[in-house]
Order: sequence, then C-alpha cells, then structure tokens
Amino acid sequence: MTRQAGRHALQIPGPTNVPAAVLDAIARPTIDHRGPASRALALDVLGGIRTVFKTASPVVIYPASGTGAWEAALVNTLSPGDRVLMVETGWFASLWRRMAERLGFVVENLPGDWRSPVRAEAVAEALAADRRHGIKAVAIVHNETSTGVASDIAALRRTIDAARHPALLLVDTISSLASMDYRHDEWGVDVTVGGSQKGLMLPPGLSFNALSPRALAASETSRSPRSFWAWDEMLAANRNGFFPYTPSTNLLQGLKAALDLLADEGLDAVFARHARAAAATRACVAAWSLDLQCRVPSACSASLTAVRMPEGHSADALRAEVLARSDMSLGNGLGPLADRVFRIGHLGDFNDLAVLATLSGVEMGLRASGVPIGAGGLDAAMAVLGGNRGPVPG
Amino acid sequence: MTRQAGRHALQIPGPTNVPAAVLDAIARPTIDHRGPASRALALDVLGGIRTVFKTASPVVIYPASGTGAWEAALVNTLSPGDRVLMVETGWFASLWRRMAERLGFVVENLPGDWRSPVRAEAVAEALAADRRHGIKAVAIVHNETSTGVASDIAALRRTIDAARHPALLLVDTISSLASMDYRHDEWGVDVTVGGSQKGLMLPPGLSFNALSPRALAASETSRSPRSFWAWDEMLAANRNGFFPYTPSTNLLQGLKAALDLLADEGLDAVFARHARAAAATRACVAAWSLDLQCRVPSACSASLTAVRMPEGHSADALRAEVLARSDMSLGNGLGPLADRVFRIGHLGDFNDLAVLATLSGVEMGLRASGVPIGAGGLDAAMAVLGGNRGPVPG
Amino acid sequence: MTRQAGRHALQIPGPTNVPAAVLDAIARPTIDHRGPASRALALDVLGGIRTVFKTASPVVIYPASGTGAWEAALVNTLSPGDRVLMVETGWFASLWRRMAERLGFVVENLPGDWRSPVRAEAVAEALAADRRHGIKAVAIVHNETSTGVASDIAALRRTIDAARHPALLLVDTISSLASMDYRHDEWGVDVTVGGSQKGLMLPPGLSFNALSPRALAASETSRSPRSFWAWDEMLAANRNGFFPYTPSTNLLQGLKAALDLLADEGLDAVFARHARAAAATRACVAAWSLDLQCRVPSACSASLTAVRMPEGHSADALRAEVLARSDMSLGNGLGPLADRVFRIGHLGDFNDLAVLATLSGVEMGLRASGVPIGAGGLDAAMAVLGGNRGPVPG
Amino acid sequence: MTRQAGRHALQIPGPTNVPAAVLDAIARPTIDHRGPASRALALDVLGGIRTVFKTASPVVIYPASGTGAWEAALVNTLSPGDRVLMVETGWFASLWRRMAERLGFVVENLPGDWRSPVRAEAVAEALAADRRHGIKAVAIVHNETSTGVASDIAALRRTIDAARHPALLLVDTISSLASMDYRHDEWGVDVTVGGSQKGLMLPPGLSFNALSPRALAASETSRSPRSFWAWDEMLAANRNGFFPYTPSTNLLQGLKAALDLLADEGLDAVFARHARAAAATRACVAAWSLDLQCRVPSACSASLTAVRMPEGHSADALRAEVLARSDMSLGNGLGPLADRVFRIGHLGDFNDLAVLATLSGVEMGLRASGVPIGAGGLDAAMAVLGGNRGPVPG
Repeated sequence: MTRQAGRHALQIPGPTNVPAAVLDAIARPTIDHRGPASRALALDVLGGIRTVFKTASPVVIYPASGTGAWEAALVNTLSPGDRVLMVETGWFASLWRRMAERLGFVVENLPGDWRSPVRAEAVAEALAADRRHGIKAVAIVHNETSTGVASDIAALRRTIDAARHPALLLVDTISSLASMDYRHDEWGVDVTVGGSQKGLMLPPGLSFNALSPRALAASETSRSPRSFWAWDEMLAANRNGFFPYTPSTNLLQGLKAALDLLADEGLDAVFARHARAAAATRACVAAWSLDLQCRVPSACSASLTAVRMPEGHSADALRAEVLARSDMSLGNGLGPLADRVFRIGHLGDFNDLAVLATLSGVEMGLRASGVPIGAGGLDAAMAVLGGNRGPVPG
Repeated sequence: MTRQAGRHALQIPGPTNVPAAVLDAIARPTIDHRGPASRALALDVLGGIRTVFKTASPVVIYPASGTGAWEAALVNTLSPGDRVLMVETGWFASLWRRMAERLGFVVENLPGDWRSPVRAEAVAEALAADRRHGIKAVAIVHNETSTGVASDIAALRRTIDAARHPALLLVDTISSLASMDYRHDEWGVDVTVGGSQKGLMLPPGLSFNALSPRALAASETSRSPRSFWAWDEMLAANRNGFFPYTPSTNLLQGLKAALDLLADEGLDAVFARHARAAAATRACVAAWSLDLQCRVPSACSASLTAVRMPEGHSADALRAEVLARSDMSLGNGLGPLADRVFRIGHLGDFNDLAVLATLSGVEMGLRASGVPIGAGGLDAAMAVLGGNRGPVPG
Repeated sequence: MTRQAGRHALQIPGPTNVPAAVLDAIARPTIDHRGPASRALALDVLGGIRTVFKTASPVVIYPASGTGAWEAALVNTLSPGDRVLMVETGWFASLWRRMAERLGFVVENLPGDWRSPVRAEAVAEALAADRRHGIKAVAIVHNETSTGVASDIAALRRTIDAARHPALLLVDTISSLASMDYRHDEWGVDVTVGGSQKGLMLPPGLSFNALSPRALAASETSRSPRSFWAWDEMLAANRNGFFPYTPSTNLLQGLKAALDLLADEGLDAVFARHARAAAATRACVAAWSLDLQCRVPSACSASLTAVRMPEGHSADALRAEVLARSDMSLGNGLGPLADRVFRIGHLGDFNDLAVLATLSGVEMGLRASGVPIGAGGLDAAMAVLGGNRGPVPG
Repeated sequence: MTRQAGRHALQIPGPTNVPAAVLDAIARPTIDHRGPASRALALDVLGGIRTVFKTASPVVIYPASGTGAWEAALVNTLSPGDRVLMVETGWFASLWRRMAERLGFVVENLPGDWRSPVRAEAVAEALAADRRHGIKAVAIVHNETSTGVASDIAALRRTIDAARHPALLLVDTISSLASMDYRHDEWGVDVTVGGSQKGLMLPPGLSFNALSPRALAASETSRSPRSFWAWDEMLAANRNGFFPYTPSTNLLQGLKAALDLLADEGLDAVFARHARAAAATRACVAAWSLDLQCRVPSACSASLTAVRMPEGHSADALRAEVLARSDMSLGNGLGPLADRVFRIGHLGDFNDLAVLATLSGVEMGLRASGVPIGAGGLDAAMAVLGGNRGPVPG
C-alpha cells in the first residue's frame, strides 16, 4: 500500500486522538510497580480521577478495557439470580444486558426505540410493580455510543427515590466521561463505569468503577464469585498506593498526563468545547437535510452524532468512500442500525478546525456517494463555531 | 527531589526494560479498532504470538494484566465446585490458589518448600489417590517469580499421563515466556497463561491464554459464569481479526514490534542470552558466598535469581540502599520470604553489560550495608559472560 | 496560559508539520558518528537525497539551517569581488543579495515587482550587456517563499545558454524541493540550495548543496576563504560515508525516514498532492474575492499561497485573530509586504482535510476581522479537492 | 544483521547518550519560528544557556554543529592576515589551526606533546616576543577531546594579563561544557566555543559562542567577510527573541529540556559526578597497569579518559572487539594517536552503573584481545564509586 500523507482522521466515537503529551508519558520507561515512584504515581492518579467523576468516594482503576468495568460493576454488587432492570438505549445497553445474563443475573429489560433517552415514567412503572424490591439495581448507559442519545441521570435517580425503591443505580459513562458534565456524587449514582479511550484521551486499556457507600456495602454481601474484579483487595491495596496485581503502569503514566491536561483546560471549558462541536455538527447535518438518529434535541450527545442515511443509501459504503477519499474513520452503525447510520465522533483532544475538517470529509464523501444533500453545511458549522472565541459576529 | 542522572536500572523480575522500538510503536496514534488497519494488526499478532508459545492452537489476547489470564484459565475450563490440584511453588502459586478459592473452586494444595521444583512423585500420588477423577485440572507456575525456581512441565505432563488421569494441565508462564524455552503443544499443556511485561518486553496490560483442543472442549461444558474472560466470543471475533470488545490497540502495536524483535534475534538466541545472564549471576553470587533461594541447580531460573540474605541482614534495607546508591530497583521477597531474599531480574531487553552493571550495583549495596561477602564477584561474572561472543578465552 | 485542545495548525510556508515516523527517527538514541552504523546511514541518505534533487552529482549535506547553504553556494564558487546577477523575486531573494554583499561579492540586482516570475528577457539583456563575462553567476529563488511566485528555471538556463554566457546558475529551492517538480541535472543548474524544514518534512537544521561538474570546477579556483562550508573536505569524507566534522546524526536519522516516506508515496504523487492543495486554495481565495500576491496564474506556487489584504485591513491583525481563534499559524508578510499579505503554507506532510481545515480557519478569521469576503470558499475548495480520489463528480 | 538485545553503549567522548526527556522534547511538533511560542522558547534558552557558561554577556546559538562555532569565533574577531597564537594540545587543536589557516589567518603554533596541558611559560615567552602586539588572539582547547588533557584557562588568562598583552582569549569548551567547571566571565575568556552534543546531553546540531565586551568590540572592526556566522544580526534579533534566519527549533526545544535537567541536578553536582566517574576510570586503568595518555594527574579530564595500548597491540582492533562483543562504542585514536589509544567517554547523562558497565566491557575486550592486564580493575572502580552515596565504607 502506498503512503497516505498527513494524519489519519480518527473521528469514531472513541478511541479518540491521543495528545502527544499523553503518548509521550505512556512511552516513558516502565517503572517498578512496587517502588516509591509507582506509589507516588498511583496516589496521584487515584486522587485526580475523582475530580473527573466528581466524587469523594474511591474510584477503582482496572488494568483492563472498559467492558471489564461493566463486569466489575455487576459482580461486586449483585449475587447470582439477582434481578437488574436494564434500560435499552441502544447497542451498548444491549451488550451490557447480554453480559449480565451470561454472568447469571436476571435481567428485566426496559425496551426503547434507540432514538430517545430513558423515559422516567417507564422506570417508575417498573419499580412500582416491584413491590418486593426484587430488583437490586437499575443499569443505564448515560450516553449511548451507538445512537448519540444521552439520558438524564439525575432525573433517573429522582425517579428511583420517588418510588422509594432501594435499587442501586449503575451508570455507564464510557463515552461521556470528561466530555459531558457528569456528577457521580451529586446525582446519586452507585457505580459509575468509565473507560480510558474517549474523553480521557488515552488509548484503550484502563477502566474505572466509581463507587458510592451503598455500592460498597452491597459488595460486602454480594455472593458472586470474583477475584480480578473484586473491589475489596483493590481498595485495600490502593490505600497505600499499590495494587493487588500488576497495574498498567505505562497507561497510568499517561493518565496522569491526561488529568493534567484536563485540569489545565478546566472541565467546564472541556464540556463547552464538546457542546460547541456537537452544535456545529448538528447545524451541518441540518443543512445537509439529513436526519439525526437522536430525535429529542435536548438529549443529543455532545461527544458524538449519529446520522441516518436516506433510504437506499448504504452507510458502510459511505464510510468506505470517506476512508479511501479522505483517510478518515467514521463510526459504523451497530446491531439493527448496521449500514443505516454512521457516527461522527467529536470528543477527546480536538478543536474547531478538526470539527470542520471532519465535516468537510463527510460532505465530500456524501457527494461522491451520490447521496442527495443540501448545500451550506460547512457554512452553517462555521457560523456556530467561529473558532475558540465563539461564533463569528454575524 | 533532585534529578538522578542516567537511566534507572529496572532489574526486578518484571516488568522489564521496554526497548525504544516497542515504546515508539505503543506511542503511535491510536487507530480505529474496527477498521482495516486494526484488523491487519490483529491477524498479525494473533498469528505471531503462537510462535512464542509454540502452539498451532489459538492464543487469546486479553486487554488486561496477567492476573486476569489466570482467572480466564480457571473460569473457562472449570465449573463451580470443581477440584483443582495446585502445586505450591511459591508466592505466585499461592496467589493463584487464593484466586481459585475466591472463584469457588475446591483447591487441593500440593505443598512445597519454595526452594525446589515440583516433585513428580507427589503429583503422581495425588492423582493416584483421585480414583474418581474429581480433580479436573492440575495448575502450576512454570517459573516461580518469587523464588527463581523452574519446574519441568514436560515431565509433569508425563506424570499425569502415566497416571492415566484426565486432568487438564494449566501452566503459568508469566515470567518465563520468551525468556526460557517453552513448548505449549509439545509438552501437552492445556492452558498456558502469559503476560506482556516480562520476556515479551512490553509494559503490563496484555495477557494471554494459549489453548489446547481439550481445553476448548472443556470450555464448552464449563458452567462458571463468565463474560469478559469468555473464550467463545473472543475466538469467534478473532477469526476475522476483531475482538468482542475494545482491544488495547496501542499495546497490540507494541506487541507487533516486540514480536518482530524476537523474530529478528531468534528465540533460541534469546533463550541462550537469558541462560548466560543467569549463569553469570549465579557465578557472582557464589563468589559472594551468598545462598540462592533455588537449591536445585538444574532448576534455577534463567530469567531471575533470588538471593538469600545472611541471618541478621535485611533484604529490604539492602534494596533501599541499592535504590538510593545506584538508582536500581531489585525485586523484594514476597510472603514468608519478605525481607529474607532479594530478587535480581535478568530478563527482557538486556545485554551483558546490563548484567554486569546490575551485579556491580548489588555488590556496592551489599558492601555498604555491611553484609559480609566474598571478593571477585564481578570477575566471576565476566569470566562467564565475556560479552556476546561468549566467555573470554582464559 | 490555559491549554488549547487539539493540534496546533502550523500552516506557515515552512517549517512544516513533521510526520510522527520522522520525529520518532529523530528521537532514536544518538549514535557514534564515526562507527559503522553512522557510515551506513550516511551512505544511505547521501544516495537517497540525490533522487529528490534529480541529480547524479554529489549533494552536500550541512549540519546547519538553510541560510548556511546559501553562503556555501556563494563562497565555494565565487572569489572576492566577483560579480553575481541576482534576480529580485521577493524578500528571500533580497536576503540572499544582502548576504552576497556582506561576503564581499559585487551584486548586480535585477529588480522585480514581487508579483511575477523572472522575466527571461531582462536576464538576457543583462547578460548581453556583460560582454566581458564579468558576471560569474546568476542567482535566483525558484519558489519565492515571500510571494508564492515560482520561476521557470529550465527557461532561465536556456536564456543563459542562448546568450552564450558562462555564468553559473545558482538556485534556491528551499520552499519547493520535494513539493514541486525540480530537476537539477536536466535543467542545468550548477548549485541548488535546499533545506530540511519544508517539503522534506524535517525540522530545521539540515541544508543542502546539489552540485554540477562546472560548480565543482569553479570551487577549485575560488579564492574565497572557507572552511565549514568548503566542499572539498566534505566530498572527500562523504565518499567513505563520513563527514569532516560532527554531522547532525539525529536529523540524518530523520532524513532517512523522510526519504523513505517520499519514496513510498512517490515523488510524482507528492507533487500532484501539492498542486491540488494549491488549486483548492486559489479557488477558495477567488470565491472570497481576495487577490493573490502572484499575478501570473501559471507561476503560482504549489507549496504556498500569499493573499493580499484589502486596503484598510491588517494582515497581522488577521493572523493574530486566527491564532487566537483557531490555534493556527499563518505566514506573515515580509519586508514591504509586511501587514499587507498573509501566507498560507500547504506543503509537507498534509492531506486534503488539512487544507480544508486551514481554509476554514482563515475564513472564520476573515469574517471575525470584518474583512468583506464572498461566500462559498469552502465549497469551491471541496469541489477542487474531493479527497484523495480527486474532485467529487459534479 | 540480527538484533542486538539491550541498549547500545555509546561511550565515546561525545556525542553522548541523550536523556529520554530531551529526546521527547526534540520530537515535539515543530513550531512557527516567528510566533509567540518560538519567541518565549528563544528568550528562555538564551537566558538559561548563560548560566552554563557562567556569563552575564550574550551567548550566540548557531543552528550548526560545533565546528561552525570555531569558525564564528575566528571570523567575528579577526581580520584577514591577523596573527593568532594557537596552543597545540592535540588533534582538535590541530583541526582548529587548520581552519584558521584556511580562513586566511596567520597561525603561530605553540607545539605540545599531546600528553600535557598548556605550559604557561611557553605562552608567556611567545607573547613577550610579540612586542608590537601583532598577535590578536590566543586560541586554546580547554579539554582536548583527543587526549583527555585539560588546561588551566584561568592561569592562561593571568599569563596574558601578566604579559600586558591585548590578545583576545578564545577557548574551545566543546567536551568540557556542562561536565567540568567552566567560568567564562570569571576566567576572562573573550569567546568560548561550545557544542550541544556532549555535556549538554543533546544530539549534535547546535553550537555556541559566549562573548565578552572586548570580543564584541573586536567584532565591530573585524574585516573578515561573514554573514551566517555574523554576531551583529544575530544579537540584534535575539534581543526580541528571534533569529535572523531559521533556527533549529526542535533542538532548541531539546535545549530547554536539557537546561532544566542540569538545573534540577545542579551544576556542582553534575561536575562532581563527572569527576567521580573519571577517578573511578583512572583507578581501573591503573589496576589494569595500562598507561593514561594524560601524564599530568592534575590535568586529567573529568569527561573522558584516553588510554594507551601496550606496544604491539592495536587500539582499533580492541574497539572492534568491544563493539562486537559488548555492543559498546569507544572513541578512537586521532591523528598520530590512531590505533595507539582508545578513549572512554564518561560524560553527559550517565550514572555510576553506566561507568561500571563501560569498564567491564573494556576489560572483557582487553582480555579477549590478548592484551596483558592486571586484575581487580572493577573492584578498584567500585571502591571509588560506591554509587551515588560515594565510596563504600572500607
């Protein structure tokens, strides 16, 4: 294959483009995981990661990719045969449900249309029907990566509380953490699941469980067999800055660098940047006269946008065209959305020019693929963005 | 803290010093884990890693550190309540046993003195006593990282076969893989557990299960709940060059680079290099008149050497002295060996001068700590090594 | 200062964005400049660089930035008091003239309007007037980096030959080499001056003199005092793969990587990519209704475009706005063009999406600065580009 | 060629091993050399480098390797035909003399035996004989890299002053700067020449002229033609944080990192570390019963040690043996010392274990080459070093 000049544009909804400072930190020499340098690093990142989850409780860091943290959330809090209410927001919610079933839990599925956020009434009904409190946990994906729809976690907590139901609240924030505002403590989440490869701007390989006191209490009575994912030994070792088994030291070095970058920019500025990119993307899609997968405007994700292809056009053919034509990767449609939607990632370490480059690559691909689209997409996006100083004065 | 000039000497028995070419590969931009570049990379490393395990069967690569692969070996082959015969070679064998217990398996422990390899007769006795074949697996650490004692896996297999016992053979090769000769197929191993951070010269974060057809068959009937570690979905996805969940793409890029380096040097040359370093280290220790933890010469590890401190001297004080004095990390004594032994890692990407630097750092530390030692340690090591061309003509 | 997310866009006309593979090669450990690895590297790059200059004669590589190679071209071929005819194409031509004067040569300046290429007739007249052949050399900048105007070197050679004048032809190709077609031998150039930091995709720090047999002959009789820049000792040492003084070994490692990238893509593909980017940029500027500094369409540079600001608008204010708003560096106006033009670099390691990102950043800056521009710039550029597969079918 | 495991040992007297932090800084993206980031960087390093030279006067930084700074020192201060007294300390002094001759200056050579430092009386005599003050400068190499002999610069200045002679003092400190104490202002040096690739722990590619007010005054009347090396335009541009032509931006990024490392360790600690390494090396050579090239103990260099081979043994054969056997590069004998001495570099970013590794590689090479040597070299070195905490208590 001949060389493609310039940088590949990785505009999938994660893994995201990793900043050079983070890659450099990862590429520093591997350290003794039982020595003082490792201990200082561990204490540093174990503290710093709490600010991202907005929690005062401990956050467990696994040397494993995000799916592992899903498993950890389940096996530490639930016992074999326990019921869990799972909100079907899209493909990743389905995968998590499938995992729960494989692990021997009884799933009560709350179906959805994959285009809207969770309906609080549906959760309220399900909990109201569960008079004996057999449901031990409600599990939901905050920002469904397959659809670009975000659900209101604080409202969900209020619904559970209003139902006076003791279910734990488990939330997957893999594609929203450090891209969209998220408040583990304030919103009353019991276990938040996170991953390294999206808003945290790291390669895949680390994952997280942010805990609540109730989650910790539940873990003490859970009868699910567990070892690698067990919180008890992890938390005990973490207290001294160590881990019960070899941590992913080089990725922890990268995590420290990434936390420094986030602190330097400021989380609020990070969230605003993502929101602006998403607004520009939606303005562009609207100018193209294409439909968003998300049909509730207030629920549209700030970290990715899923776009529906018009009837008779293949999203996968478009993505192949864009890859060949502009050396850019877009996210594919997953499950029933395969070939029906494509997903634009606008999260992690990117800026306004990267958003515009992305949209121009999509537009050239759409035109080359013969998809009928409206004019002025880029102009619409530029009007929203206008660069770091905000919209260009009209 | 003021700067220490020069490179830190990471002479623990893993993680090991990572070559620049591997660090560079890890620090390349993160790629789309569902795109063609990722697929090509996956097929490449999934093929290449087999040559290191010396197997024609599939090798599962987990985006998780080595301990996870222990768990995977157990939950894929055993069902809750199954019995497993575990050979107590040292600390890591103990940890694995503890894990098996936490996961709900019934462990039959074969005690050892932590200074010798497995005794085939003891295994033969245990299996002979198990007339109903309740023991479903025999688990052993090939190269016990806490003691520097290696066991003869081929002989163990012959023992099991001679007993006409159907138990599976599970082997941890974390600190021997790619440092000492290991033959998954020829030796009849059913599941081999490996990690990235030792002989493979990668940072921690990847781990491996090499399988046998019998292990695969066992996984089809195992009733242990599992999802992240499940072989079935992993193998199905791997066939097309993909993974059922996000792989650790950047570490896979590093794995490709590491496999290239191993192939370039040649596995036999790699093993010979490690054996030479170990022989030089033992010659030096003998000149110092210190005792090895391993008391069976033919069983001494090629990848690390555990040295016993004379009575009344603290191994941890020595290690602290060496760290402060020579900026070198040595491995600590684990469990009952804490403060009693120190461990010298001589594995991964190192050469003869690194061995001599290591030994000189230990000698200066021993002298400064007031440990009585004999003279001529370095001379003895140089006589064995003589550099890449072998011993200096006497 | 708070962090700017994403990558800085370095869209000046050099130094250019350096590919990761080149940066990695530069960051490899420094080698013994007198050892076999250095020798192999030197012979490799001394051979490879000839293909970029399209010459069978030697190319001298200086461990110094481009301005040094200007000095080398002069002091090796001319003697104190010699006359040189210098074509004033713009700012860099003026700097070279000033250097010649400082070095004690007598400059005959051929004035220009800084918006057009060299006029062959003017050169012909000057040479015809020089009946005694006092002019020893004609010096010209192939691609004037301050204006974006390229001159026809082959035609200039024909003009000199037609005048039956023995003057040497010295050509600065700093901002065109490896971006635009250039043929040292075929075009009859005597000394070509090049630098590392533009089309060669390296950081600044290396510079080049490609020689002709006539230039070499001239150097044997030149009486200019010289040592660091002297060709004789350099060529003698190069023959064996060495240098008369310490070379810039790490940049040479990068040069090897860069030559590999150029060979992999193919020089013709590289030139076509630059030409396409330039055409798209000019189409965009035309849609904006702004003027190009270059007013001879066939002479417009493929590696950069200088754009004139409308009266009453400051180019420097625009550049500051673009830097603050979009984290992008544009080239400034130089000398009399200060604050009057801004320059867009579209050379080195870039692709279509980078061109579009650049143009969108300029457009947002123009609008925010209140510069009256026409609509549809991005659309015009996309129509030209359409990605690697060429224009989108209309 | 098959791979050599581990790191190549670059133990020549420069270029030296570059720390990872410096290589990383060099490999950061290239910046706009006319933008604010470049300006801040320039002002930072132009200030910081003064502390290394210990001067309050400006230091010029050339984007060129060290030999260029020799030329700059001469052409800025001397006029064609000027006489310069050059002290012949060894090979590099000879090369500098040859350069001066090529540049048209009249050299008065003060011969030496290449084994001793400059004799003050000889200089005094030469200056006394120069009643008309025709000698415009005295030029000397502080630390002769070909012999490992250092001269006393402060004493030389006193000698010149005692002679009431107005000659400028030009000093080459390429292999001593940032390794051995050097005081440009206090010692009354007029131009100090430095390079990046030794004690500054950078790759080759930058060089320096530290100036004195008298040197600056001399440059105003010098009639040597010059442009690239001219101080006037450089100093004028530097005042605002810019350069008159493209600087070597990426190496400047590395310089900043290197200055930070030196400041962090502290210059006095750096000098002590080098002195200790040199003492250990000499103790080892003494145990081997080999001769040092330097025969004045108080003048032996702290940054390198040149060792004489016994009659009948080839230094080049030894170096080839060491390279093949231990993957280590040693410095060769230069000029009349070719094949007679080998040179051990112990400067830059190294520590005690690196010194011991180096000496063990040399010892194994000596034995393998059949060179008769005494025993106990390593023991002698360890007794001197004992690690960062100093000698091991006997």
